[in-house]
Amino acid sequence: MLERDGIDRRNPLRRRVHEVIFEADTPMGKLFDALLLITILVSILAVMLESVPTYQASHGTLLRTVEWVLTIVFTAEYILRLWCVRRPTHYAKSFFGVVDMLAILPTYLSLLIPGAQSLMVIRSIRLLRVFRIFKLARYLSEVLSLMHALRATRHKITVFLFIVVAMALILGTLMYMIEGEQGGFTSIPAGFYWAIVTLTTVGYGDLAPHTVPGQIIASVGMLLGYSMIIIPIGIFAVEIVKRHGKEPTTHACPNCMREGHDTDAIHCKFCGSPLH
Amino acid sequence: MLERDGIDRRNPLRRRVHEVIFEADTPMGKLFDALLLITILVSILAVMLESVPTYQASHGTLLRTVEWVLTIVFTAEYILRLWCVRRPTHYAKSFFGVVDMLAILPTYLSLLIPGAQSLMVIRSIRLLRVFRIFKLARYLSEVLSLMHALRATRHKITVFLFIVVAMALILGTLMYMIEGEQGGFTSIPAGFYWAIVTLTTVGYGDLAPHTVPGQIIASVGMLLGYSMIIIPIGIFAVEIVKRHGKEPTTHACPNCMREGHDTDAIHCKFCGSPLH
Amino acid sequence: MLERDGIDRRNPLRRRVHEVIFEADTPMGKLFDALLLITILVSILAVMLESVPTYQASHGTLLRTVEWVLTIVFTAEYILRLWCVRRPTHYAKSFFGVVDMLAILPTYLSLLIPGAQSLMVIRSIRLLRVFRIFKLARYLSEVLSLMHALRATRHKITVFLFIVVAMALILGTLMYMIEGEQGGFTSIPAGFYWAIVTLTTVGYGDLAPHTVPGQIIASVGMLLGYSMIIIPIGIFAVEIVKRHGKEPTTHACPNCMREGHDTDAIHCKFCGSPLH
Amino acid sequence: MLERDGIDRRNPLRRRVHEVIFEADTPMGKLFDALLLITILVSILAVMLESVPTYQASHGTLLRTVEWVLTIVFTAEYILRLWCVRRPTHYAKSFFGVVDMLAILPTYLSLLIPGAQSLMVIRSIRLLRVFRIFKLARYLSEVLSLMHALRATRHKITVFLFIVVAMALILGTLMYMIEGEQGGFTSIPAGFYWAIVTLTTVGYGDLAPHTVPGQIIASVGMLLGYSMIIIPIGIFAVEIVKRHGKEPTTHACPNCMREGHDTDAIHCKFCGSPLH
Repeated sequence: MLERDGIDRRNPLRRRVHEVIFEADTPMGKLFDALLLITILVSILAVMLESVPTYQASHGTLLRTVEWVLTIVFTAEYILRLWCVRRPTHYAKSFFGVVDMLAILPTYLSLLIPGAQSLMVIRSIRLLRVFRIFKLARYLSEVLSLMHALRATRHKITVFLFIVVAMALILGTLMYMIEGEQGGFTSIPAGFYWAIVTLTTVGYGDLAPHTVPGQIIASVGMLLGYSMIIIPIGIFAVEIVKRHGKEPTTHACPNCMREGHDTDAIHCKFCGSPLH
Repeated sequence: MLERDGIDRRNPLRRRVHEVIFEADTPMGKLFDALLLITILVSILAVMLESVPTYQASHGTLLRTVEWVLTIVFTAEYILRLWCVRRPTHYAKSFFGVVDMLAILPTYLSLLIPGAQSLMVIRSIRLLRVFRIFKLARYLSEVLSLMHALRATRHKITVFLFIVVAMALILGTLMYMIEGEQGGFTSIPAGFYWAIVTLTTVGYGDLAPHTVPGQIIASVGMLLGYSMIIIPIGIFAVEIVKRHGKEPTTHACPNCMREGHDTDAIHCKFCGSPLH
Repeated sequence: MLERDGIDRRNPLRRRVHEVIFEADTPMGKLFDALLLITILVSILAVMLESVPTYQASHGTLLRTVEWVLTIVFTAEYILRLWCVRRPTHYAKSFFGVVDMLAILPTYLSLLIPGAQSLMVIRSIRLLRVFRIFKLARYLSEVLSLMHALRATRHKITVFLFIVVAMALILGTLMYMIEGEQGGFTSIPAGFYWAIVTLTTVGYGDLAPHTVPGQIIASVGMLLGYSMIIIPIGIFAVEIVKRHGKEPTTHACPNCMREGHDTDAIHCKFCGSPLH
Repeated sequence: MLERDGIDRRNPLRRRVHEVIFEADTPMGKLFDALLLITILVSILAVMLESVPTYQASHGTLLRTVEWVLTIVFTAEYILRLWCVRRPTHYAKSFFGVVDMLAILPTYLSLLIPGAQSLMVIRSIRLLRVFRIFKLARYLSEVLSLMHALRATRHKITVFLFIVVAMALILGTLMYMIEGEQGGFTSIPAGFYWAIVTLTTVGYGDLAPHTVPGQIIASVGMLLGYSMIIIPIGIFAVEIVKRHGKEPTTHACPNCMREGHDTDAIHCKFCGSPLH
């Protein structure tokens, strides 16, 4: 007997494990989530500290042990997740399924690709384990509402970013033509990088115009970058005003046919007759 | 027989070419647009790579061949566009007509202006071909809605940018007076450039105040630049709120024909006759 | 016979001059404004170019002549303004009256304070002539609507800027304690300056944390500065939503007593009876 | 006889002192607040100037005297506050109670921890006196409304900051892998610090990518940081729009006593009975 939520109800153990791992509203589920959260944070901290030369020299063995123990814990968790859901392939292909596998893969890969010369490469692959941080997002339901608002404005934000990139390309080319190699703008890609640094108002200062025409072009670019941010903010604001206005207009009163009722309304606010 | 959309319907070939080149909702039109998009991206990439000294040394001939082939393709496309529209001069003077010509002109100009010493200048003119990127905008209808919103707030944003420039002038003059030449502020234009870098929060750091009064003035300038961005955002937000309120202008009063009624209006707000 | 707009109507010449200088809707008034605009821009450009050592060496005499001629023109204009208004002291004390005087004063002051050693100081005073740029604002009526919106949120923006300054003080003190003199943070004011540079996201990079605790504190400061801008934007947005919401609710229909009518409504949108 | 506002009304002196110290609407209360404000500003200025080596050498004794006199004044004020309120422990545990104590503690601590070698440490503790600045907030009622708006969006802003930190971690790790130690990215924490500097658009430039892949990743990071600010602004805007819609909660239904009706509602949306 299979239910809609994808759990096999015939196996009580499987069902219990599913409850603990996937649901966050039971005491055991909450405890599991809290423990997993701490474990992920510890493993990220271990990866970060291992990259600091002094820490690796003094606590290298400890950090590597922590890494292996946590990798085994995460592997067990991954297998349990696969086992307790009804459709393992469905989970494995989902966003969190991929993230869960990416979080354990690098450590095992470091065994398969041995050798002294590829040591740095191995460490690099292992570093991908910071993808574990995405797991944290699962515990924060608020993330979803943000993602929803972003998805609605996805296309417009993309167009905006495309315009910024196009502007950066033209601005960077102009700077390459004006400042040239002696000004540090050795190629169009270099000018493009400078233009991105300038339009986003980051302004590292590793590349900066030295000639007067270059400084004029750069000033125009800076003013553009400074004021251009109003466009995506406006897009987002339009979306918000639209959503707010549209939300309650879907229910019309069956008596007077007037709309504009709140989502929690039981009676029509104009004639008083019941809404449903 | 001439139609309103500017196509000569008597010539079936011309009409077919127009459909393929200018319309994006037929299978052939879609294919043409996709191919053009890829061609433009390839040509931009070729211009960018050619500017990198190492790539020019190793793949110079290939990149120049790509450039010439694509220039001929774009020329053919430009001629076809001129041929298939009813009013070629109208198209040639339109924004995209000018951009299309600017995209092919630099390569031909490099033939007319030969000579070793002016080689750099030729390459510079050729770089203008990045204007080809504007062609990409044609495929994104979303750009238009953004441009419309910007056009409505054009005057106010201009005033805002003028105020920023005026502030930068005063701030730059004060810094020139306070910091002087030993602080790198060699002239008022130099101070003005620094002020733009500071007010837009870019902050390269190539010029920075070293004296205490200079740092105080700079701090005031930074706080101004940081908080001033609320003004154009506010202008944009006002426009959005206004538009949202005005939206129902599509319904005209059947009696006095005037528009601008609210969505909940039953009677015309101008003459009092029922709206529906 | 004195009118409300402060002009003496008995003297036709005075009235005519007032019309030309103060009013912008007559052909002569428009011409005067356009000429004044160009004159101001030329004088600002002359001051800017004079500060560039190379221009001063090559065109010093010309620039000084332009400066003196324009100063005399602006003086004549100032005297005419005082003469043609009814209450000269009222104009002299107004914002533009003070700006107009500040725009001509520095050039005359440079005559009164002679001497080789104070030459630099004289030039500095003369630079205050950039206040002439404020005159430009007079021609842009849009500035006023912006200033009105800013005035309404004046107190809240001030509180926000105060909080930013208080945060900068605490952040700067912490950095002075952590980084110390060897990190460039030689005093609390130096730390305060760094904190302003960081919180406003300008980031010159002339001062930057080098120790790990310093970088952690700096990261917190940067995240604060990055996200804090939502507060004044929110304040401004509240003001806008408030203004928009309040505007049409003041008029109630005398027949059905319902509110929510637009400012241009003549008939009630609910029952159709006249509103006034 | 104890009143609800926590003042012992039996002792007239105590009551009078409470009025002067805690209330800001009597002439004496206003004078006290103004004096306290000036005193706090003077003490902050003294701490700031004492940290500047040249001022400490020339005016060290004066600044130390000012510090001690003001510390004694603030101690007297703190004791008076404890004495005149009904529940001293309640006040001592409140936000301003803790700030008031933190403002006087460091100076006394500098006496208990003597010795030449710990001189710097003592001065550091003393610097915490800048917490006095928080006292200023008490006098600005506007701060409270801002804090209220921030509290409502607290969770969402936290999630946003968490996402920024997670992004910075992944971006920093990628840069550490790509740029490596020769690019200045000596460890993941160093890369993380660089990512925070970049995502917040501060851009010191002390660390900047030098390789092409590094500059590509950095460009993506900059575009993310530049456009990501729309998320918290959107969150804040949603809150504002929501609040504006909810505002009319002051009218309760005379039948079912429930609130939350729109301004144009005639009947209660919950029970259907007429509202007015």
